Amino acid sequence: MLTLFFSPGACSLAAHIALIDSGLPFALHRLKFAENEQRSAHYLKVNPKGRVPALVTEKGTLTETLAILLFIAQMAPDKQLAPLNDPFALAQLQGFNSFIASTVHVNHAHGRRATRWADEPTSIEDMKRKVPATMRDCFRLIEEGMLAGPWVLGEAYSVADPYLFVMSGWLKGDGVDIAEFPRVEDHYRRMQERPSVQKALADEAAA
Amino acid sequence: MLTLFFSPGACSLAAHIALIDSGLPFALHRLKFAENEQRSAHYLKVNPKGRVPALVTEKGTLTETLAILLFIAQMAPDKQLAPLNDPFALAQLQGFNSFIASTVHVNHAHGRRATRWADEPTSIEDMKRKVPATMRDCFRLIEEGMLAGPWVLGEAYSVADPYLFVMSGWLKGDGVDIAEFPRVEDHYRRMQERPSVQKALADEAAA
Ligand SMILES: N[C@@H](CCC(=O)N[C@@H](CS)C(=O)NCC(=O)O)C(=O)O
Ligand SMILES: N[C@@H](CCC(=O)N[C@@H](CS)C(=O)NCC(=O)O)C(=O)O
Repeated sequence: MLTLFFSPGACSLAAHIALIDSGLPFALHRLKFAENEQRSAHYLKVNPKGRVPALVTEKGTLTETLAILLFIAQMAPDKQLAPLNDPFALAQLQGFNSFIASTVHVNHAHGRRATRWADEPTSIEDMKRKVPATMRDCFRLIEEGMLAGPWVLGEAYSVADPYLFVMSGWLKGDGVDIAEFPRVEDHYRRMQERPSVQKALADEAAA
Repeated sequence: MLTLFFSPGACSLAAHIALIDSGLPFALHRLKFAENEQRSAHYLKVNPKGRVPALVTEKGTLTETLAILLFIAQMAPDKQLAPLNDPFALAQLQGFNSFIASTVHVNHAHGRRATRWADEPTSIEDMKRKVPATMRDCFRLIEEGMLAGPWVLGEAYSVADPYLFVMSGWLKGDGVDIAEFPRVEDHYRRMQERPSVQKALADEAAA
């Protein structure tokens, strides 16, 4: 059995959608960020980094979205959620997801969690002000080259798609209009139509 | 033929070491950061993100260190640079490398490239001041749980090792004494003894 530790609407939503896509049985464990449960002694034993997502498996616990996404794809090979038998395409998938984890998600976090990297209120405000510009730069790269279309890797849906979906969903709160990026917006709409996405969103809202 | 775009001592050193470990034939292309070659029109055609590493292959160009590392491991399966046939262990490897890309490397970058995320000189100084603390936090997690020892994944050397080596090598410049982390320091010393590491360092110094 797999257990996903998540917070509604956080980056863990990507793994949640992929789990539903995979058809693997799993349980959800919600952490209340408002109560700082991600830093509780209990959760730090699950993930010493104090972040979501974490996926508890029979072999141990996995952390980091792109690793959990790869694990899910490998555990449900019939669902073809990653090009597991094509070394170049698999590296492209990991490259896309690494750009999200190391750049897009990080830029977004400067609006909410700026105290990770600075202390003064003026610095925090400065970082917040820059978020729309840095998110726009990332989405321009995605729009103009990284999103093959209709899915991230082209004709085949993969675990890159829910990860992009989560980032696209954050744009509004980051002060960026998704309509600036028509191909990303089209991707976002098609994701919203998928039953797995609808179920993940409903289950996170009810959790 | 593979071509690695790199800058001496940058994160591209991890891919460079892994390429030597793999035994695959490759060429090196140095970018001069002092002349901002990574933002030249020519290089932006190779990697629109304007960063190193980029690996040009016969099938196209790969970017992002952890993706390039996975590709190298897949292309030289006899060298066993990644647990390609163990889904959980492979996800652990990607999880370790994602922590480096999304957290360790990002924390380091706040000392050198803080203008990515803020504009005011006071904010830049504030971010620089915090780098030793954020790097120390990361290395405490690595020391106490993530580095199985003697190599990152345990008995088997993998492409996580050169990536950790590069981060460990940055500690001094980030105001952190590697001796605070005995297991990391031991890993660093054993990496320095490897001929592939010595060759990569020598070739980057001569490039
Ligand atoms: N690199 C990690 C980032 C994980 C992360 O930052 N998660 C956020 C939610 S989107 C979190 O747990 N934040 C809680 C906190 O910072 O206290 C990944 O890709 O999984
Ligand atoms: N997430 C990327 C980060 C690449 C990166 O930031 N590279 C740095 C060198 S360590 C760079 O090219 N910096 C040049 C610049 O920012 O202009 C990866 O893992 O490859």
